[in-house]
Amino acid sequence: MKIHIINGPNLNILGKREPEIYGKSSFHEYLEELKENYQDVEISFFQSNIEGEIVSELQEADDNVDGIILNAAAYTHTSVAIADAIKAIETPVVEVHISNVFERESFRHYSFLSPVVVGTIGGFGLKSYALAIESFLE
Amino acid sequence: MKIHIINGPNLNILGKREPEIYGKSSFHEYLEELKENYQDVEISFFQSNIEGEIVSELQEADDNVDGIILNAAAYTHTSVAIADAIKAIETPVVEVHISNVFERESFRHYSFLSPVVVGTIGGFGLKSYALAIESFLE
Amino acid sequence: MKIHIINGPNLNILGKREPEIYGKSSFHEYLEELKENYQDVEISFFQSNIEGEIVSELQEADDNVDGIILNAAAYTHTSVAIADAIKAIETPVVEVHISNVFERESFRHYSFLSPVVVGTIGGFGLKSYALAIESFLE
Amino acid sequence: MKIHIINGPNLNILGKREPEIYGKSSFHEYLEELKENYQDVEISFFQSNIEGEIVSELQEADDNVDGIILNAAAYTHTSVAIADAIKAIETPVVEVHISNVFERESFRHYSFLSPVVVGTIGGFGLKSYALAIESFLE
Amino acid sequence: MKIHIINGPNLNILGKREPEIYGKSSFHEYLEELKENYQDVEISFFQSNIEGEIVSELQEADDNVDGIILNAAAYTHTSVAIADAIKAIETPVVEVHISNVFERESFRHYSFLSPVVVGTIGGFGLKSYALAIESFLE
Amino acid sequence: MKIHIINGPNLNILGKREPEIYGKSSFHEYLEELKENYQDVEISFFQSNIEGEIVSELQEADDNVDGIILNAAAYTHTSVAIADAIKAIETPVVEVHISNVFERESFRHYSFLSPVVVGTIGGFGLKSYALAIESFLE
Amino acid sequence: MKIHIINGPNLNILGKREPEIYGKSSFHEYLEELKENYQDVEISFFQSNIEGEIVSELQEADDNVDGIILNAAAYTHTSVAIADAIKAIETPVVEVHISNVFERESFRHYSFLSPVVVGTIGGFGLKSYALAIESFLE
Amino acid sequence: MKIHIINGPNLNILGKREPEIYGKSSFHEYLEELKENYQDVEISFFQSNIEGEIVSELQEADDNVDGIILNAAAYTHTSVAIADAIKAIETPVVEVHISNVFERESFRHYSFLSPVVVGTIGGFGLKSYALAIESFLE
Amino acid sequence: MKIHIINGPNLNILGKREPEIYGKSSFHEYLEELKENYQDVEISFFQSNIEGEIVSELQEADDNVDGIILNAAAYTHTSVAIADAIKAIETPVVEVHISNVFERESFRHYSFLSPVVVGTIGGFGLKSYALAIESFLE
Amino acid sequence: MKIHIINGPNLNILGKREPEIYGKSSFHEYLEELKENYQDVEISFFQSNIEGEIVSELQEADDNVDGIILNAAAYTHTSVAIADAIKAIETPVVEVHISNVFERESFRHYSFLSPVVVGTIGGFGLKSYALAIESFLE
Amino acid sequence: MKIHIINGPNLNILGKREPEIYGKSSFHEYLEELKENYQDVEISFFQSNIEGEIVSELQEADDNVDGIILNAAAYTHTSVAIADAIKAIETPVVEVHISNVFERESFRHYSFLSPVVVGTIGGFGLKSYALAIESFLE
Amino acid sequence: MKIHIINGPNLNILGKREPEIYGKSSFHEYLEELKENYQDVEISFFQSNIEGEIVSELQEADDNVDGIILNAAAYTHTSVAIADAIKAIETPVVEVHISNVFERESFRHYSFLSPVVVGTIGGFGLKSYALAIESFLE
Repeated sequence: MKIHIINGPNLNILGKREPEIYGKSSFHEYLEELKENYQDVEISFFQSNIEGEIVSELQEADDNVDGIILNAAAYTHTSVAIADAIKAIETPVVEVHISNVFERESFRHYSFLSPVVVGTIGGFGLKSYALAIESFLE
Repeated sequence: MKIHIINGPNLNILGKREPEIYGKSSFHEYLEELKENYQDVEISFFQSNIEGEIVSELQEADDNVDGIILNAAAYTHTSVAIADAIKAIETPVVEVHISNVFERESFRHYSFLSPVVVGTIGGFGLKSYALAIESFLE
Repeated sequence: MKIHIINGPNLNILGKREPEIYGKSSFHEYLEELKENYQDVEISFFQSNIEGEIVSELQEADDNVDGIILNAAAYTHTSVAIADAIKAIETPVVEVHISNVFERESFRHYSFLSPVVVGTIGGFGLKSYALAIESFLE
Repeated sequence: MKIHIINGPNLNILGKREPEIYGKSSFHEYLEELKENYQDVEISFFQSNIEGEIVSELQEADDNVDGIILNAAAYTHTSVAIADAIKAIETPVVEVHISNVFERESFRHYSFLSPVVVGTIGGFGLKSYALAIESFLE
Repeated sequence: MKIHIINGPNLNILGKREPEIYGKSSFHEYLEELKENYQDVEISFFQSNIEGEIVSELQEADDNVDGIILNAAAYTHTSVAIADAIKAIETPVVEVHISNVFERESFRHYSFLSPVVVGTIGGFGLKSYALAIESFLE
Repeated sequence: MKIHIINGPNLNILGKREPEIYGKSSFHEYLEELKENYQDVEISFFQSNIEGEIVSELQEADDNVDGIILNAAAYTHTSVAIADAIKAIETPVVEVHISNVFERESFRHYSFLSPVVVGTIGGFGLKSYALAIESFLE
Repeated sequence: MKIHIINGPNLNILGKREPEIYGKSSFHEYLEELKENYQDVEISFFQSNIEGEIVSELQEADDNVDGIILNAAAYTHTSVAIADAIKAIETPVVEVHISNVFERESFRHYSFLSPVVVGTIGGFGLKSYALAIESFLE
Repeated sequence: MKIHIINGPNLNILGKREPEIYGKSSFHEYLEELKENYQDVEISFFQSNIEGEIVSELQEADDNVDGIILNAAAYTHTSVAIADAIKAIETPVVEVHISNVFERESFRHYSFLSPVVVGTIGGFGLKSYALAIESFLE
Repeated sequence: MKIHIINGPNLNILGKREPEIYGKSSFHEYLEELKENYQDVEISFFQSNIEGEIVSELQEADDNVDGIILNAAAYTHTSVAIADAIKAIETPVVEVHISNVFERESFRHYSFLSPVVVGTIGGFGLKSYALAIESFLE
Repeated sequence: MKIHIINGPNLNILGKREPEIYGKSSFHEYLEELKENYQDVEISFFQSNIEGEIVSELQEADDNVDGIILNAAAYTHTSVAIADAIKAIETPVVEVHISNVFERESFRHYSFLSPVVVGTIGGFGLKSYALAIESFLE
Repeated sequence: MKIHIINGPNLNILGKREPEIYGKSSFHEYLEELKENYQDVEISFFQSNIEGEIVSELQEADDNVDGIILNAAAYTHTSVAIADAIKAIETPVVEVHISNVFERESFRHYSFLSPVVVGTIGGFGLKSYALAIESFLE
Repeated sequence: MKIHIINGPNLNILGKREPEIYGKSSFHEYLEELKENYQDVEISFFQSNIEGEIVSELQEADDNVDGIILNAAAYTHTSVAIADAIKAIETPVVEVHISNVFERESFRHYSFLSPVVVGTIGGFGLKSYALAIESFLE
């Protein structure tokens, strides 16, 4: 089973950015941990700060993987283009969030992506990614 | 580890109610499956159609379990009382939904509970409950 | 033909409550009159002030009657749970109101139930119940 | 007893228009049926696609009939002028709808007429008119 | 000086319609009084219940009169077409209302016409028309 | 007959302020003209830039004059206090505006005063005041 | 191929009305030009200022033409009745506008008709009609 | 004088729930103190987490007490049913809140009950109940 | 203990203003009664119709009294400046209202002051002031 | 005549994406067809999934082409930056849409681009592009 | 060069009011510092808690100074009268704020003044005034 | 002191774009002027039309400069991603605008960036950048 993780803007500086919300470890450290724990799963990874590159990555992943885990970060709340890409492809996408977005500013309560993904998992810190992998496994 | 599952209104007729959205198996059948799969976890269960009984159950569970999985169904979208109960207790609560509520009527997009729970998991069918148990285990 | 009437909160004190809006006779007096007028119809009756008990009653009535007449009173305007119960069952439900709710406070103009019932009848005083029975007969 | 039925725009092509919502029989066929069933009631009929003609018809009917059944169709949701006419006359008016307007587009959920009529009956197909006649008879 | 008065829907039954708001005299009685008081002014008059006929009347009056007094009644609050006609013609239009529309239902607080007329006069009963004539005279 | 004119903020610099909207003559010049034209009317005048002084002036005028003409200018759109003063006194108040406020910014479309005055006159330049005097005379 | 053009309110005075927005030529001049340019197309024409007459015209055209070009002008933004007529008939309807309605007042940004027509063409002056004919031809 | 105190959801765990907002003493401790301080008043007490039981309690108290002090907690902001019960009974009801609800989440700023009670007292901690008793005494 | 009462606009004509809402006695009569009843409390008093003078009075009272009772009347619903003054000072402020503002126009339902005062008391007529004094005493 | 077509996000996978809405042919196939049909027009083409690249392309095309046809897809509904670019350049821009956006989700009903383009054409499938070329030709 | 600084409500107690937001030094201390630093600029100063006095001060300053620095504090968010005064005068006005108003309550996000001033400077503490002087100097 | 200026979309064609709003000189000309005037400050510069590149630039500048001046142009009003980047870094950011955004379209009145920057400066033309430098210097 091949799973592709796509991270959106500012997640490249995880561990540096607002550590009281997002924790202190970088995503790359966590990725290694994930690969360790799910050795039967082929986990690939992409990050971009650019909305349109995430659109392109979703399109390209479509023929190559069994599932996509998407944390679109800020673009979750503003991007119709990413939502359209998810609808345009056939690979199932699971939306994850590190923090509980519903505790935060009201413009973070709406997700353009939630209506078009398979399911959403949020609030469990980096563990949200592991739960998303579980959702594909079970 | 003790985990208590609390189900809200109309989940007692799961399998009968709108099977194209909620699936055909009853929750009791699924509960047996869950207990089978997580034999190290002590899983208890409560269901009520009455908002105030869910409030009381959350209060009573507070001293007895390590985690609560709550699917408040329709009350998710209307109940300040259940949200207050979650804030009033110390046991962590995970919110689950069987269907992807964001695909459905707009009054199902707001959850009074999301801002006060640890995290939310929705859209994975009955598997959402298993993922919630995983969230407590990891 | 079996028809079940379900009344919501505060309708147990009809005749006492705001008589300039709801009239002076109690619902039980009227029920006798209805039974008299529709002797071929088996009319049963349930009232509760508790939202969740109305949910349960709708579920239980599902196998036993041919039609349900529901006056959910205040819960008309606030209850997603009762609307979900109506959708979950197969027995047709007709929504009735004694007063013309559209003449009253604006929060009484929205009904969570109207989109999921067969039809609505409102504003004819207690006669609204008789018209609902007619709707099943014709 | 004299009852006047007033139908609004597009009801002149009933049976042709969206038959999955409005059914296949024309209103004239149904009118004959109604007259048959209520031989003691003198039923007259008027239809117009023009808002202002409905206003005039309501004014003119005022001295001639005992009750008016009004299905203003699209004008239900946009016409202050028809609502003003209803308030200006003394003959009681009952609002009917063939379909359940609350299941449809949100701009059909508001009725300018509901606050000024005696009562509303909707969702029972053409039978809604028969129920309106019953409401005057009982 | 030629002044044309255009009255909208339901003003043809003035004196009959809600006399506690609109008074007991018909508009024709008042028109005679006006002509008496302003003998130097040539006052003509048109009434229609039909929005589009008011549009046509405004267009036709454009070449024939020095000023138009318009009481569009209910269409004040719903008609873009009448507002467009006012903008399309060159004759100055004064908007009048018999009652104080701001004391009444909130949908009567917005006027599509106010932004395109010369000025508005409202709340003075039938005297509002006399003041509008004065506004042209002075 | 005694009529008191009360002008609100920035009307003391009329003729200087935005002459393309308000014209070039000062209010004092116009006041002389008004007194000339209505020699049978005792016209008094008050202006203040302070909301609370307008409240006090309305209270004090209550026992001394037969009618009040109020141009509250900017306070029209923000002052509940002036509206309360109008309701608290018995002398009839007519609201006037020099410009057509409905052509301007949307925050000028709402008037706290309109629902509590006898009537409103707006858009006729300084002539609006003369029309208001006429409204008391006729 | 038969194409029917239906024009709404105030388009009968095109060339006179706000020429800076709508241009200086009348629609009849333009119609001749259109017929000249599309000699293979049988072009018929109807104009009314009355909403209900546009409803009737749409119904009547249904059996007689291959396509309808509708510029409902002001009724675009207020008429549910015309939208219902479009849905009720089978002939394809194309919505055209002379000006770019999105540059103008915000109440012109919503069209009740757009969701029920085949397509919309707006902003090209009278050329919008020619483009609509092209849309049927290609 | 007989006064009945009715407490809503989660007030049964007062002293445990969010002590930084609600204080550390349980309501029962405070009730004893109240009875001590107001020995001439017969103070009775009811608490429920169930909306419909509060409705029933209000109905039943109607014949038995001189005044009702109601802290409906979360139901303050969501219950039309409790508001209807208050309107249906004759005993005066005073609404109390322990915390200042206006400092908290915006969904706590609206009270369905405030428009139908005699008066409201909030923000004084448990002392709010004593002030409510004073309001009945004076 | 020193308590300062600050009254806002139009409360200087209490007893004259809308007596069906505010009662017939003037505030000065009531003030004497209050002083009589609370002889241990040094009660001072200030009234102004001017928002900014209430701001200044709050600032000046800050060093001289133990508590402030504020009935800002109309300014309750419009004044950020008074709210800022309350936040800027250290003396506790209690907000009182004579009438039940929640029964009245919707613009009276919002208070800029409620989020920054200690507590609010409203609806008990002039007795609201006595309850506010009690709130400081207990 | 030189015309530049700019396509936005996800239009690179046309024919693959939601074929029931967008059809089965790729844009490149259609482009060849267009060039065939309009041999006198020099048609160039650009596509990007990146909002800012569309901004840059609009700037660069400004000196090189006579007209721009823009289908900004999802960015239509979210991009102020593209609207600013259109305003900043002098080349006329026509907005096209393949589907009828007004039939779809409500967030697709608003276009930031419509107020700043020459005109809009939507709902005719790929034929919308041909109509846009016609609009430049005629 | 003459520059006049106008401060609004509660700025007279700067240094005392919420020092964690506004700092600990009084405005008079800072004014001395400013005069020291800009010896070539004639700096005058006015403060009032009364909206109408700020209106008057703006009018009076108009003939006497080269620029006005206005910190209207709370009136920024509520005063149409001050905005009208700024539009009525010819002297350029720069709006300053000590704190970053966009970090604070949402009612502080709207400024009636921003659309009518030359420019706005906010969030730099008392230094905002120095930057405003710089804006006049450069 | 090192200060980095980051400019957003369409600012690369300054001098060309809407010169009546933005002036006629290009930003590069102005940058030279700035460097001339502030020789003690090391001023660097970056411009991009791509939202995500501005996010990346903010992250990269974080370790290299003492202050950032950001004119995000159109992205000011739509970008949560840029706001998140500002929050994620430690270097202070000042928001500048050339024009007075509050005079323009309403969608330009909201800034996602204002709540997370140190301060904002807008409306002073290109001089806004100089004032921002001053804000770092003082």
